Amino acid sequence: MDKYKIVIEELLKFRNERDWEQFHDSKNLALAISIEAAELNELFLWKKDSESENINIEKIKEELADILSYSFLLAEKHNLNVFDIVLDKIKLNAEKYPVEKAKGTAKKYNEL
Amino acid sequence: MDKYKIVIEELLKFRNERDWEQFHDSKNLALAISIEAAELNELFLWKKDSESENINIEKIKEELADILSYSFLLAEKHNLNVFDIVLDKIKLNAEKYPVEKAKGTAKKYNEL
Amino acid sequence: MDKYKIVIEELLKFRNERDWEQFHDSKNLALAISIEAAELNELFLWKKDSESENINIEKIKEELADILSYSFLLAEKHNLNVFDIVLDKIKLNAEKYPVEKAKGTAKKYNEL
Amino acid sequence: MDKYKIVIEELLKFRNERDWEQFHDSKNLALAISIEAAELNELFLWKKDSESENINIEKIKEELADILSYSFLLAEKHNLNVFDIVLDKIKLNAEKYPVEKAKGTAKKYNEL
Repeated sequence: MDKYKIVIEELLKFRNERDWEQFHDSKNLALAISIEAAELNELFLWKKDSESENINIEKIKEELADILSYSFLLAEKHNLNVFDIVLDKIKLNAEKYPVEKAKGTAKKYNEL
Repeated sequence: MDKYKIVIEELLKFRNERDWEQFHDSKNLALAISIEAAELNELFLWKKDSESENINIEKIKEELADILSYSFLLAEKHNLNVFDIVLDKIKLNAEKYPVEKAKGTAKKYNEL
Repeated sequence: MDKYKIVIEELLKFRNERDWEQFHDSKNLALAISIEAAELNELFLWKKDSESENINIEKIKEELADILSYSFLLAEKHNLNVFDIVLDKIKLNAEKYPVEKAKGTAKKYNEL
Repeated sequence: MDKYKIVIEELLKFRNERDWEQFHDSKNLALAISIEAAELNELFLWKKDSESENINIEKIKEELADILSYSFLLAEKHNLNVFDIVLDKIKLNAEKYPVEKAKGTAKKYNEL
């Protein structure tokens, strides 16, 4: 069995053992992703560029794992394959950000 | 090659073709995750519980893909395997949220 | 002296006594607002509509105060009067959301 | 009448003319603050420290006004005076961050 499937099964087992599916509507899962993302960002708060890579990797690991966990659960709820949706989005982004226009600039597509 | 590796390679190829690595320090990647998470949440803004599952799946797909893309890029930057960090976090959470205490309640671990 | 001015003076005094102005660039202040907003949202996480007003008011007070503090500091940094900018935005929003189109609907202006 | 009262009255008038009170439960107002905060942060995304103050002030004004508007509406809903809650929070923070420990450092209170 591939590793993504194992992870999904473990996430669902953890959730079901605690009877938490009742809380996991899509709106609350999205909110959970956002809150975990803020906890990740808090690791970098008040840091200068030059300090941006000096963060405790254990904390990054934990916060990123929380973001991924809720993202995988939301994907699973909607029968979305996380790899396929990222590959699809890369194609869309390639149209919004053509290499010749986007190269070397961080501008948003509607300002290119 | 497994699918996760393909996704990472495509993300890096997209980034490198546009010379965007210069923008992708950890702090900005974390910020990008957070901004994409807010865009996901905007799909649910002002919705009641009863409407929470009536969201356009195409939009969920796109916003979730953006969150995953930046999360995968941040993981890659720190040589983190996204599956391993989620499995590790499930173990940590199992200690913070023992089944007998956490079952059926949405309380935070420090309030259990 | 009006109360808003008193608040700004107290915020600046608190900041300056701790020599924190060096950390308060606009990007980090914006990030701080976002992190405090997530802490406010965490009070509502996993709650159903019917529970949405049963939140500890002391906690709402504290998180909202944090959001306002960083917002006031960012406004002060850019010489913005918080009341004027809200009144200006109400006028802009009145054009984006004309009563006859927006009444009773939570749709975004570009979907009206 | 003081200016804060005028702003609150204008916000409520805008809301009531559009019959939007039905959408403004506390959970959704908190979510709206968070989404507007992310839009403010997007102005700074991918920017280096050295570019952090080169942002279009008109855009900062608009996003900050949105954050303040929803924050004022949430305060009004709970009969909170925005100035008093900030002054109260400054007192609490003075205990969490005593000058002699916090001076010149951006560490969180639990790491001081």
